[in-house]
This record gives sequence, structure tokens and C-alpha cells, in this order.
Amino acid sequence: MSNDLQERAINTIRFLSADGVQQANSGHPGLPMGAAAMVYTLWTRHLRHNPHDPKWPNRDRFILSGGHGSMLLYSLLHLTGYALPLDELKKFRQWGSLTPGHPEFGLTPGVETTTGPLGQGFANGVGMAIAEAHLAAEFNTPDFTLIDHYTYALVTDGDLMEGVSSEAASLAGHLKLGKLIYLYDDNHISIDGSTDLAFTEDRMARFAAYGWHTQKVADGNDVEAVDAAIQAAKADPRPSIIAVHSIIGFGLPTRAGTSKAHGEPPGQDELAGAKRAMGWPLEPAFFVPGDVLEFFREAVTFGEELELDWQSRLGEYQKKYPEQAAEFKRRMAGELPKNWEASMPVFPADPKGMASRASSGKALNAFVAAIPELLGGSADLAPSNNTALAGIPDFQPDSPLGRNFHFGVREHGMGAIVNGMAYHGGLRPYGATFMVFTDYMRPPLRLSALSHLPSIWIYTHDSIGVGEDGPTHQPVEQLATLRAIPGLVTIRPSDANETAHAWRVAISRTHAPTVLVLTRQNLPTIDRAVYADASNLEKGAYILKDLGGGQPQLILMASGSEVGLIVEAGAKLAADGLKVRLVSVPSWELFRAQDAAYRESVLPKGIKARLAVEAALSMGWDRFVGDSGAIISLDHYGASAPANILFEQFGFTVDNVIAKARELVAK
Amino acid sequence: MSNDLQERAINTIRFLSADGVQQANSGHPGLPMGAAAMVYTLWTRHLRHNPHDPKWPNRDRFILSGGHGSMLLYSLLHLTGYALPLDELKKFRQWGSLTPGHPEFGLTPGVETTTGPLGQGFANGVGMAIAEAHLAAEFNTPDFTLIDHYTYALVTDGDLMEGVSSEAASLAGHLKLGKLIYLYDDNHISIDGSTDLAFTEDRMARFAAYGWHTQKVADGNDVEAVDAAIQAAKADPRPSIIAVHSIIGFGLPTRAGTSKAHGEPPGQDELAGAKRAMGWPLEPAFFVPGDVLEFFREAVTFGEELELDWQSRLGEYQKKYPEQAAEFKRRMAGELPKNWEASMPVFPADPKGMASRASSGKALNAFVAAIPELLGGSADLAPSNNTALAGIPDFQPDSPLGRNFHFGVREHGMGAIVNGMAYHGGLRPYGATFMVFTDYMRPPLRLSALSHLPSIWIYTHDSIGVGEDGPTHQPVEQLATLRAIPGLVTIRPSDANETAHAWRVAISRTHAPTVLVLTRQNLPTIDRAVYADASNLEKGAYILKDLGGGQPQLILMASGSEVGLIVEAGAKLAADGLKVRLVSVPSWELFRAQDAAYRESVLPKGIKARLAVEAALSMGWDRFVGDSGAIISLDHYGASAPANILFEQFGFTVDNVIAKARELVAK
Repeated sequence: MSNDLQERAINTIRFLSADGVQQANSGHPGLPMGAAAMVYTLWTRHLRHNPHDPKWPNRDRFILSGGHGSMLLYSLLHLTGYALPLDELKKFRQWGSLTPGHPEFGLTPGVETTTGPLGQGFANGVGMAIAEAHLAAEFNTPDFTLIDHYTYALVTDGDLMEGVSSEAASLAGHLKLGKLIYLYDDNHISIDGSTDLAFTEDRMARFAAYGWHTQKVADGNDVEAVDAAIQAAKADPRPSIIAVHSIIGFGLPTRAGTSKAHGEPPGQDELAGAKRAMGWPLEPAFFVPGDVLEFFREAVTFGEELELDWQSRLGEYQKKYPEQAAEFKRRMAGELPKNWEASMPVFPADPKGMASRASSGKALNAFVAAIPELLGGSADLAPSNNTALAGIPDFQPDSPLGRNFHFGVREHGMGAIVNGMAYHGGLRPYGATFMVFTDYMRPPLRLSALSHLPSIWIYTHDSIGVGEDGPTHQPVEQLATLRAIPGLVTIRPSDANETAHAWRVAISRTHAPTVLVLTRQNLPTIDRAVYADASNLEKGAYILKDLGGGQPQLILMASGSEVGLIVEAGAKLAADGLKVRLVSVPSWELFRAQDAAYRESVLPKGIKARLAVEAALSMGWDRFVGDSGAIISLDHYGASAPANILFEQFGFTVDNVIAKARELVAK
Repeated sequence: MSNDLQERAINTIRFLSADGVQQANSGHPGLPMGAAAMVYTLWTRHLRHNPHDPKWPNRDRFILSGGHGSMLLYSLLHLTGYALPLDELKKFRQWGSLTPGHPEFGLTPGVETTTGPLGQGFANGVGMAIAEAHLAAEFNTPDFTLIDHYTYALVTDGDLMEGVSSEAASLAGHLKLGKLIYLYDDNHISIDGSTDLAFTEDRMARFAAYGWHTQKVADGNDVEAVDAAIQAAKADPRPSIIAVHSIIGFGLPTRAGTSKAHGEPPGQDELAGAKRAMGWPLEPAFFVPGDVLEFFREAVTFGEELELDWQSRLGEYQKKYPEQAAEFKRRMAGELPKNWEASMPVFPADPKGMASRASSGKALNAFVAAIPELLGGSADLAPSNNTALAGIPDFQPDSPLGRNFHFGVREHGMGAIVNGMAYHGGLRPYGATFMVFTDYMRPPLRLSALSHLPSIWIYTHDSIGVGEDGPTHQPVEQLATLRAIPGLVTIRPSDANETAHAWRVAISRTHAPTVLVLTRQNLPTIDRAVYADASNLEKGAYILKDLGGGQPQLILMASGSEVGLIVEAGAKLAADGLKVRLVSVPSWELFRAQDAAYRESVLPKGIKARLAVEAALSMGWDRFVGDSGAIISLDHYGASAPANILFEQFGFTVDNVIAKARELVAK
């Protein structure tokens, strides 16, 4: 192709992006204008994708980690032929458009990840590369290669400053994820001004220390140099990062190379100045030269050929390995294997019982045998989180078939990597840590919900039951803050059988994330011959039993470890002649999803004496107990002492439940 | 001193620690036993402190970043003569003791930081070194040095894996904090097993890339080698990290060097085996040889001399610079300057008004002039957070007097560094970012509350008012999750004058952290001649006005940007003859702290028709509106569109408030 066409193709990206921002009067022109050439190089010379099938399993992944540069991605998606018409680019950042301020997975065809919160896309890519390596090891054969793709990202100064990318980069280097190739838009500018204000580390030396292959490209507009660097990156067995020096807002007469170019519309004068300087027509806005479009749209033919070739390979594979092929298709469709639920363990009634982290470990190991895509690990707490998979190898550079992951003490990185595995498809990943350390990984938790990812989050040591480790390790507010995340379902099961069903629910949620909240300490396994079946967990709250016959005078409700308390207290109150309803409330969100009639049947408006018991913040329980009810809760930090002492000191005793219950009934 | 005494002194640390863990039957023996010699070296040969005055301003700081090794610190504090009797060590991890599972600032004399959540102590140290550099620049004179101390820490593999330490280390390197010296307990073991499972990066190369001075010590029991490395670190102008190879659980016959040594009591046999091997008496437990105690207690005499010398210097300083000396003393005592409140700005009524981030910027700049210890910055959003201090230089390596901080895109690091500055004393630091990115910095937020630090947190762009940036940038659940943190006060002011008072309240809280929640968009400045005075903000909720006279039929309540809505809606409802109470609710925590009579006077039980309006999650509002009330809230993610469209689409309109209010009154 001619240099002229290439130049105009790159400028088309620049000005589509700038026009979008200008039209919206909102957005970030600097990144697209500065990085257009490097991303052009990647997309036209390397990226193997099929714009007409954005879900083709073996496509290369591209992540715009600096999601604020969304117009860059929208421009490329439109130009290369994805189902994103020019009209949508004109509606950038408007109500109901396919072009929101930051890319949203599931909304816009071709958007692989939701980005914007910095560092997340960087770490998502590590998860995608892990998924690629694992699926390749699982499904490729000496004669057929089904999975063999790169994971590319455009990452920014902000991404590199965020700790989550340090965590993910360290793990990527350890895991030798050679098919991870990141272009670093090294533009020396952040919002406060020059990166010299706060970010003067030797970035490439840092990545070399992580075990990455590093390169520098001096001129980000030098297509051949970027091309050569990507080729070298592909040839190197390590994950690669290429620092490409660019000028933010390239072309803007006065703002280029300054922080003013980053996050403000250029303004008509600046934009016109840039167009003039580059020989671009001032009108119309959103101008796409015919030959440029034609050139970019070659991606469609090329992509269809790529996929056709792959489909025919899959056809041959299917003939030779029909079972593996069927399994591969099932996995890529995100469908669960037949009868997977049959592997759920059932636990006999047992007053001594076991910790829900222990029953979770058993349930997980049982399901893992039936569901080969279920895999994950812990942020260096596998023995405590009970997440190790028995008899299954570790995922390591020399054992990509492994399903036991060691994420290291990197909760945040783990969260974003697990999301990346989920984004990729073909896997059902989980990540685990202590409940209190959910604080370290809120951003990926939120994004798993916002992006409808089926990530499973396992949080053990869920209350003052942690005991001696003390207040730094005892969750108090975390349960409320997890329940607060829209789209996330949080389940705090009360015994071994509820825990098994919690796993069942989590696995069945193939398009949304689930949190399992589990104890360190033993919980009695409730006798389900006497109390309602644990499968009711799926309704979020259910009547364990009405004691004393007739309309209850009192409702006792609790979640997790406190259900044992209300069961004991209820028995004593009933023995004294009180009519008591016992309600297990493992999940607010699941209960909210039931119809009004069911909710009313469990918590009838007429029964005003209601007591909720939970060793956590009271916030939000008012809705369940109402104006006349009461809550035994923990609205302050815990302390360092054996758990039984703490439960006693803080009022989580059968006697206190009875006393508070009597007060309510007497009112 | 003899090698024998030294050896026994080190073993005293080891076995006091191990005995503490064994007696508690809970805790972490591995770190203290492995790191005893290196910390012994630091404490007996370098650390300048006064055990009889743990608050001496010019002491060297020591942080045990791996807080799980708390018995190491307690042993040292006891041995060197802090007010921590041996009996307290025997009550390790027990209810009411001074020796909780992880070190807690404010509880145990000599504990400089609350640690346990990994990476926090590492980053706190960076804040302390910043505080040292700033105060030295501010108060030292050519003839007198008042502040001149080191900040030391013992950091672990876990600390180095956490992203927060990467963020803080990068900034420390940039800021050339030469008096920061970290011993890295390089023991190759984490909970999952060998660090080879997940952490194989070249750590020292990584720190060199950040601009740190790095060294390695091959044998962590080699006191002379550790000593020499610390001396070299002191001599180098860069921050220093020394990787000291150690054996976790050193001495334990079968567990040393394994993950079994990390977090479990050694057991009687292992412990006895270790004591035998090292020639230590098996009985009594908690044995401290007389000459060892005598040797360690030299720290008392030495420390008193150090401080006496310093006090006499301060005396001379006072003679020559009486004003500076008085100021220094005030600052170190954590007292605010006289009449600081007088500098609070007052804003005239203005229907157009201004964003609360803008009024916050004005209030901050006004207070900064009166309060020299007030300083801080943003995680690369200063222009958006309105946190830049006009006419005040940046804090940079060559301008340590600066008070404008550029933390970079490092919210988590910023949080922990701000806490470190607060731990140090002499400063009132603040940190700022977008509200949605509080998710990136939950651990330091929590620790600021748990440790009673007067950190001030400024969060702007507090709702769907963010507009076009879309759901990744629009807080929905964050307000609830901030309110959930025990000990934190969250304030969401409704106009410019409430914002000024919010700053006043935040500054006045000298022993607890405060969050300010501020808008991106303009808010009308309420006419305080018509509505109640904004100083009522300090009560958390207050009656803006009763409209229509007599007992209200309806209470409308709101916070922040939604107060304008209820004011408008209230006026229209009152014009239609309804008696309406308007309540501004800027802070739940401040309201909860009022007495019952006041709370009842604002929200009388008898008034059942109550409507709360807040563009955030409804969670927790039930307590305010009761069973008969209603909430106009946002219980799902936002969207990308201009803010006014979002408020309209999601029901935050005067008409909707009026409609919902009428429904309530009709009931």
C-alpha cells in the first residue's frame, strides 16, 4: 500500500476519534490522536480477528487498557467492519448509544473488556493469556491447533502506575506468558502534567525484572518500527512490552504534548488547526475517505478466511476427536456439562459439623471432577481458603494443563486476572482470599458485576470468628459492602449443605458473578430431616422451621454462623411456649429476586417482632426487621482473642438472642 | 560485647516470640525466629529511640510491615524497656491484652503503625519519610537540627508482592527519600509454599528500576553483614532496600525453612527441639537471661541521653527562634493553630452556585493559609479534584517544603502514604481521587479509621452527576460502602457553605479520619437567610426549614446534590398547602453521634410520611424513612450520557419527588 493511504488511514482514526469527542463535547482526544499509528500497525498488520464474528474463539484479543481512549477503539471497530455504524460514533457518550464513555463488554461488538478504571485491562490481559495457554494445552493435539492466539493491549502511564498491573505483570513474567504483547503508549503526560512530576522510574528495567521482554520505539508514528517491535515480541518466549514514545493529542496545534490534550474536547479551533496541518478536510466531520474504508474493510475478508480455515480445521478435529470437539464447543459456548449438579455432595446432620470453608473445599473438589472448566486459586491462602484441588496439578509454565493457581499475595491482581480468564471464555475461574481482604480487590469485583462475568469469589474467615488475628483481619463491614455491589450475588451459607448449594448456585450463574462468604470456624450441620431442605438456599431466604405451631409471634433470622444461634435460641423459646419462626437468610440478592408473594410468605408484614442476628454491620438489615424489629450486629471493630470469647463479649450468644427476642415479643 | 551474649540476645527474641505463639496456641513463629538477628542488628546498633518516651518527635521510626510477626516487635519493645511488661507477652492474642495478633497503633507503646494487611506498612513508611523530609525542611535551621531521623521497616515477600508497595516504592524512588531503609526478610516461603510458586521476579532489579539503592545479605544471621549493609544504606542518598536471606522458623527442627513454620504454633516438640539445638533452657518459658535484659535495657539510658540532648537543642532553638519553636511544639502535639476556624470562607446565596468540588477547593485553600500543617494532593486528578494549593510549591526532591503532592495514578499508595504522614505527626495530610476509585484504596481507608488517624479523604465526582464518563466512573454503591467503615465519618455536603463546614469538621477531627464527598456538577448555594445555617452540618442532619407551619405532614430528606431537589419540590408541595419538613442529611455518622432528643427533634417518630432522595444505593436509608417511608435511590449502575439526562432518566427530578411525596402523604 502507498504511504499516502497509510497516512490517511491513520489520520482517519485520529479525526474520527477527535470528531467524536468534539461532537460529544466530552471525552479524551489525546490518547487516540497520539496512539493512532501504533494501534493502526497492530490492527492492520498483526491482529487476527473476524469483525463479522466477534466471538470467534481463536481470535487475537485486543484490550484498550486506557479505556478513556474509547473513541480509538470505536473508530477501529467501525473501520474494520464490526457491527458499529458510523452513526453510533456520532452518538459517542449519549444515552442509549453503543459508544459509552469507556468501553463496556457485552454492549459494543468487538469490545473484549470493560476498561476505564486503570490497570484493570492490563491485568485482564494476563488472565486471557492464561486462558489461552490452558485451553491450548487442553484441546490442541499434535495434528490440530484450535487455540493459538495472542493477547494484545494498549496500556498507558496510568496503567503502569497502578499497583494491580505490577501484581499482574510479576505473575505474567513468572508464568512465562509469551503470547502477551503490550504496547505502552509512552507519552510522558498525565492529568497533573508531565509524568516527571511523579513517575520517573525506569519502566522497562522494571518489566525486565518481572521477566518480560522489553523494547523501545522512539517514534510512535513510525509504522515500520512499531511493526518490527511487534514481530520481535512475537518471536520472544517471554511476555513483551514495547514502550512506544508518542505525543499525546498529536496534531493539535497548541495542546499536543500537554495535559490539556488528555481529557477535554479539543475545541473547534484546535481541531480545525490539526486538520489543516495534516491536510484533512475540515468538513464533513467523521470523514472517512472511500479508499481508506476499503483498505480497513479488508479485515472482513481476511477475518472470514481466517475463521473459515479454523472452522475447517475444527471440522477435521471433530472427525478425529469427536468427544474433544463436542467438549470444546460446549466450553466455548459457556454451557455447563450435563448432570453436573449430580456431583454435589450431601452432608449428614452433625452437631459438631465443619467450617463452611471446609465444606466449600469438599463441594469445590466434587464439582471440579465433573466440570473441567472450573479452576482457580487463592492469593497465597490456599490451605486456609480450602481452595486447593486434590490430585490436580498446579498451573505453571511447564504445566499449563494445571488447574491449581498460585496467585501470590496479590488479591487485586488475582481479581482482575480471574476476570480476564472469564472474559476469554472456555473457563469458569474462581479466586479466593480472606474476607477482610476483599478490600484489596474491590475494582475487579465491581467490574465482574458490571461486565456480567461468571467469576466466582471465595472469601473465608468471614467474621470475628477469625479470632486471635484481631481487628485487622476480622471483617465487620465487608459483608455489607459486598451486598452493596449491584449485580453481584453474595451468599453466606449457614452449614455444610447450604454451602454445597451455594456452590451449585454460583456455578449455575453463567452470566454473573457470585461471592461465597465462609467461616473459619466449625458450624453444626443442620438436620434437614427436621429443618427445611438446604436447596431452599437458592431463594435467598427461607423458613427453616416454624416452632410451636400456628401463626408465629416472632421471627428469628440470621445468616451463616449465626443461624446455629437462632436455631438453639428458637428451641429454647419454643420450649417456653413461644411460637417462633426460624429463617435462614443466606443471600439478600437471591431473596430480592423472588416474587412478592414468596417474600411475604417468609416474612409476613403482620409479624412485627423480628430479630436479625449477624456478626457484622447492621447496615441494611432494617429492611428485614422493620421499625418494630431489632438487630444483633457488630457495628465496631473486633478484637484479638479466641473466637468464642469474642462472640460472647460482643453479644452473639444464645442467651442474648433469647433476651432480645423476649424484649421484642413483650413490646 | 561477647559473641555469646549477642547470640543469646538474638535467641531471647526468637524464643520469647515462639513461646508467645505457643502459649496463645495461635500466631506466627516463623518470621520472628527467622528475622531475629537482622532486627536485633537494627535495634541495637542503629535505631535511635527512647523507650521511655515513645512519642519523642525525632525518634527513628520502625515499622513491622509483616504485622503477623507481631511477637518479634513485642519482644523487642519489652526487652528494650518500653512499657510492655513480660506479663503482656504471656497474654499474647488474649482479650484485653496489649499484645494483639497484629500490631495496633495507639494500643501498644512503641507500635508506630497498625500492620497485618500486607503492603500497608511498607507504604506507611514512605509517608513517614516524606513527613520527616518536610518537617526537617520547615523547622531545621543552619544552626539547629530538630528533625533528622530514619524510617526503617522490616518487609516481607507478601509486602513486596502487594501492588500498594510497588506504587509507594515508585514514588519513594522518585522523591529520593534517602532516609528510608527497609530490611527485606527474603525467606523464600509464603503460605502456599516456596515463593518459586508465584514470585520469581528479580526483586532487587525491580527496586533499582524504581531508583532505590539495593543490597543483598546472604546470611540473615550474620550480624556484621547486616550491620554493614545498614551503614551502606545510610550513606546512600537513595531509599534503600536490603534483601536479607533468612530461614523462616530458624531453629525449628523439622519446620524451619517450610511454610509450616509461618502461621502455626510450633508445638511443644518442635519448640523444645529448637531450644535444645540452640542450648536454650526448656524451662521456664519466656526466659530472659539477666545479662541479656541488662544489655537490651541499655536502650533506655541511651535513648534518654539522645532525647535529653535533643531537648537541650530544642531549648537553645527556642531561645533563638521562639516563634518557630512554639509552632514546632504545637505541630508535634497535634494541636490546631488558634483561630484557624476564622479563615473559613462564607459563600453568598446563588441559584447558579458551584460544584462542591469547587467550593471545597476554595475552602481548602482558605484553610491552608491558616494551617501550615495542612497538605496533600491527588492521585493524578488535582485539576478535577480541585485540590491544588494556589501559590504553594510542589513537594519534590528539590523542594521538600512544598505542600502540593503529586501521588501519580496510585490511589492505594496515596492512601497508605497519607496515613504514614498522619502516623508520623506534625502534619494534617489529605488525599484525593474520584469517588468511584475509593474502591482502589479501601485498605488504607479502613486502617485510617482503625488507627484513629486524622487523614482527610477528598472524593469528587460523587454520583451519576459524573455524566458521560459512564458506569465505570459513576459511584453507585461507594457512598454506602464508605458509611459502612466503622470510625470513619463521611460527609456529603449539599452546597458551598455546607462544604466549607465539612472542611471545618474534618480539620477539627484531630484523632479520626473524615471523608468529603463532592460533586462534579454545580449546586445552588442555598440562601441561609431563608434556610437554617450551614453550621448545622456538624450535627449530621438538620431541619433546613419547616414549610407551611405547624406539625409537618411529610419529611423530605436528602444529601449532597439531591438537597436542591427536595428544596424545590418542597416549595411546590407547600404552595399546594402541604406542611413539609426539609431535612439536609450530610452525614449519618455525625447524626448518630447526637443525643436521642436531637435526633427525635429532627425526625420525630410521629411523622411517618418520609421520603429520602439520594443518587446512590438505597442501602441503609430504611433506618431513616422507616416502614412507611420511601426512598428515591439508584440501585443499579449508571450509564454514559450527559448528567442532566441521567438524573432525569433515573428519577431524580422535582416532579418525581413531588409524585412520590404525594403517594406517601395519601397513604
